[in-house]
Amino acid sequence: MKIAVLEEILQENDAVAEENRRAFAEHGTYALNLMSSPGSGKTSLIERMVERLGGRVRVGVVEGDIETTRDSERLERLGVPVVQIMTGGACHLDARMISCALRELDLGVLDAVVIENVGNLVCPAEFKVGENDKAVILSVPEGEDKPLKYPLMFRESSALVLNKVDLIPHTPFSLKKARGYALQINPHLQLFEVSCLTGQGVDSWVAWFSRRVEESREKRRI
Amino acid sequence: MKIAVLEEILQENDAVAEENRRAFAEHGTYALNLMSSPGSGKTSLIERMVERLGGRVRVGVVEGDIETTRDSERLERLGVPVVQIMTGGACHLDARMISCALRELDLGVLDAVVIENVGNLVCPAEFKVGENDKAVILSVPEGEDKPLKYPLMFRESSALVLNKVDLIPHTPFSLKKARGYALQINPHLQLFEVSCLTGQGVDSWVAWFSRRVEESREKRRI
Repeated sequence: MKIAVLEEILQENDAVAEENRRAFAEHGTYALNLMSSPGSGKTSLIERMVERLGGRVRVGVVEGDIETTRDSERLERLGVPVVQIMTGGACHLDARMISCALRELDLGVLDAVVIENVGNLVCPAEFKVGENDKAVILSVPEGEDKPLKYPLMFRESSALVLNKVDLIPHTPFSLKKARGYALQINPHLQLFEVSCLTGQGVDSWVAWFSRRVEESREKRRI
Repeated sequence: MKIAVLEEILQENDAVAEENRRAFAEHGTYALNLMSSPGSGKTSLIERMVERLGGRVRVGVVEGDIETTRDSERLERLGVPVVQIMTGGACHLDARMISCALRELDLGVLDAVVIENVGNLVCPAEFKVGENDKAVILSVPEGEDKPLKYPLMFRESSALVLNKVDLIPHTPFSLKKARGYALQINPHLQLFEVSCLTGQGVDSWVAWFSRRVEESREKRRI
């Protein structure tokens, strides 16, 4: 019975995710579901993206947190529309939460929505929310073996941002191994080596993101 | 109905956790449930503990991972009994898994069992496994605000290990803020500042652990 209930929850979630996907597609708005462990740098990466994109790509953000509005306050300072979801204990965002958040965002004026998921390398990967892409951040201090140990998230993602590369000299981290393990789990992963602290590598990541935004826009035109 | 099922799962879990707790108590074996985000240093901390304790405290380890036996291989090299649980996707250990693992460990010859939970700062905190204490590791690169954003785990724990303090000079981390936020969420937390890489602070942590082991032994004698 428990398994039946779980399947029912996932089916219901998929149906709502499909509604969200259609809402994004109607407006040609690109949606990115950004996931990682706590403290890997999701909010910092979004800050750097918004700074680099300036007004060229109009970005809205959905902030998922179990508690506190700290991250959305950081992003509001940058002048982007932010909707905060406080899950009150829940370990991931689901499609219904995003559906509620979309009521607060005007997709007509947004080129992209970045959804910052709850900090968790496991559960968020199981729930579609209607995104175009999932992306995962792995930060250097977490160690290079995480793709092997938490494979679902790396398998589901289109892109992997290796963050905090500025710490490589101070840790026993091997970039070569990290790349190898990630591509072993998912050979289609786009890899980006980034430091949100120094700015290194942010441009390549932003270029990829902008390309994906442009592709969503063009699909709408067709 | 979904809530009813969840409550049923938690009640069933609590009953099995109570059985585990009794099994530990009968042998005067201390059980520690060690939790953190992925890559905060759970396995490294256990390695340092086993090295320092030598044969004085006989430790067994239960290794929880979604995939791979990498961590248990690291610990077996140190000559301690290790039982690997592969959860196959599940985001936390539960009492039933620990009950199965205990069949493989001889509690009669063990002073302590360290249970390394799945790397996840959210879900493991919700499931008792029959432990004497929960402890949480927060590593410096994760940022000092995690107790505020993931409060349940910090509220449930007896001790907090602040790991990777060797990285403080290379990150915008404030030890003072980290301490303050942690104690704001749980004023009873025992705090330890540690670097598993350099060995700094490991002795104080091991002293606390040894005291807790001794207290379990004495309770049995009474």
